[in-house]
Amino acid sequence: MRVGFAQFNPIFGKKDQNVAKALSLIENADAELMVLPELFDTGYVFQSKEETLKLASPIPESNTVKELKRFSADKKMAVIAGIAEREGDKAYNSAITVLPNGSLYKYRKYHLFYKEKIHFESGKLPIEIVPYKDARIGMMICFDWIFPEMCRLLALKGANIICHPSNLVLPYCQKAMVTRCLENRVFSITCNRTGTEKRAGEEFKFTGMSRIVTPEGNVLCDGSRVKEQVEVVDINLKMADNKNVTAYNHVIEDRRTDLYSL
Amino acid sequence: MRVGFAQFNPIFGKKDQNVAKALSLIENADAELMVLPELFDTGYVFQSKEETLKLASPIPESNTVKELKRFSADKKMAVIAGIAEREGDKAYNSAITVLPNGSLYKYRKYHLFYKEKIHFESGKLPIEIVPYKDARIGMMICFDWIFPEMCRLLALKGANIICHPSNLVLPYCQKAMVTRCLENRVFSITCNRTGTEKRAGEEFKFTGMSRIVTPEGNVLCDGSRVKEQVEVVDINLKMADNKNVTAYNHVIEDRRTDLYSL
Repeated sequence: MRVGFAQFNPIFGKKDQNVAKALSLIENADAELMVLPELFDTGYVFQSKEETLKLASPIPESNTVKELKRFSADKKMAVIAGIAEREGDKAYNSAITVLPNGSLYKYRKYHLFYKEKIHFESGKLPIEIVPYKDARIGMMICFDWIFPEMCRLLALKGANIICHPSNLVLPYCQKAMVTRCLENRVFSITCNRTGTEKRAGEEFKFTGMSRIVTPEGNVLCDGSRVKEQVEVVDINLKMADNKNVTAYNHVIEDRRTDLYSL
Repeated sequence: MRVGFAQFNPIFGKKDQNVAKALSLIENADAELMVLPELFDTGYVFQSKEETLKLASPIPESNTVKELKRFSADKKMAVIAGIAEREGDKAYNSAITVLPNGSLYKYRKYHLFYKEKIHFESGKLPIEIVPYKDARIGMMICFDWIFPEMCRLLALKGANIICHPSNLVLPYCQKAMVTRCLENRVFSITCNRTGTEKRAGEEFKFTGMSRIVTPEGNVLCDGSRVKEQVEVVDINLKMADNKNVTAYNHVIEDRRTDLYSL
């Protein structure tokens, strides 16, 4: 399957402009699945819960989702993207997968980072794995990476590829994704944004370096630290069905569930 | 606390020689805690369960343990080492911590690698954290690294430093230990052996590169790929008490135990 990411620098609050930008980046990608950054339509540095609710929009009614669905059907491309979601008086840091057949899947971020805890509610929806061609897509968002339970959960639910919209500011995740893929024998696509957001005295420098990793921990593709970049690679998803590190060692079955349950 | 490792190349079956070698390497280390490799007294590539039982020895009655205890008391140094343990007709791939006050703690490897599954029984003893000065030592052995549950369990039990005797042949663990330390905010000392063992047509090349990592994922010290090497660093174990990645994010308390239990 041909899969990839489009890392770029969303402009805070310019939703239509950001959606148009993202779609223009991937419209000529020769890919069946593309990943966009976290909060790709709104930008990241909200000042208050009120501002978040004002910019967030309902799924699937929002213009962003409509545009993604139209694009996906038109280009026959699955798109995974991070979106600020509003439901009533609550906001969620969500990711969606839209499929060419019109299906829509949603994940609400489990592990909120820093002041996201002020601006968003924590997700509580159960994990859904998205079936798409040979892929079984597991979504997670940015800071979820630091909790090994997250990728493990996705792998146990059957994901063979983890799609990971991000707005990373710390320098650790990209390397850690090699470990996450190895320990679960899955593929991962981390799509991080670039650029800087400076608002009300706080400055966030996003670290780019989007990354695609194989179940054997090989890095297929790395984004630049600062540049807008679209990358596509061809992967064999069957690799993720082999959970054996050696003929004697299976990364899932060898867990000592008789001794730990975390 | 001054802590370190001694990586070297044990000679298969030469127990007294290997013990003497290891102790000669660390006797002048200006350290309070030193880690030796997995199976440091026997070597690694057993041919059969019978051969394993013949070379393994009971804890604490064995000469290896007696020597380590004498050394520890004499040098006022905690020593963590991997040993082939025999109990009746069973063999275990074990690690022990000997303390200067004569205390002895034991861990039997939970996750056996490759043909260790033929030669050893899987460990079932509950985790014990070793209190020693400012340290709360958690032991794990080699391949345990690939299961994130293992370091998580040690951290949840209170370990602030993971001592990790190893006989690594795959190239992944050293980098993964950065992730393990970050996700649990603990120190780790991986002591890997060097050299090659070739027996009955199977060749194991051990990868050296022993490594000490901080709770912030910084590598304090790396061993050579091939050389015998003793390294000691000074660490502030209080760093591991701070589980906050940001003022809002605690790597243990932020786990969504309402949503997963793995």
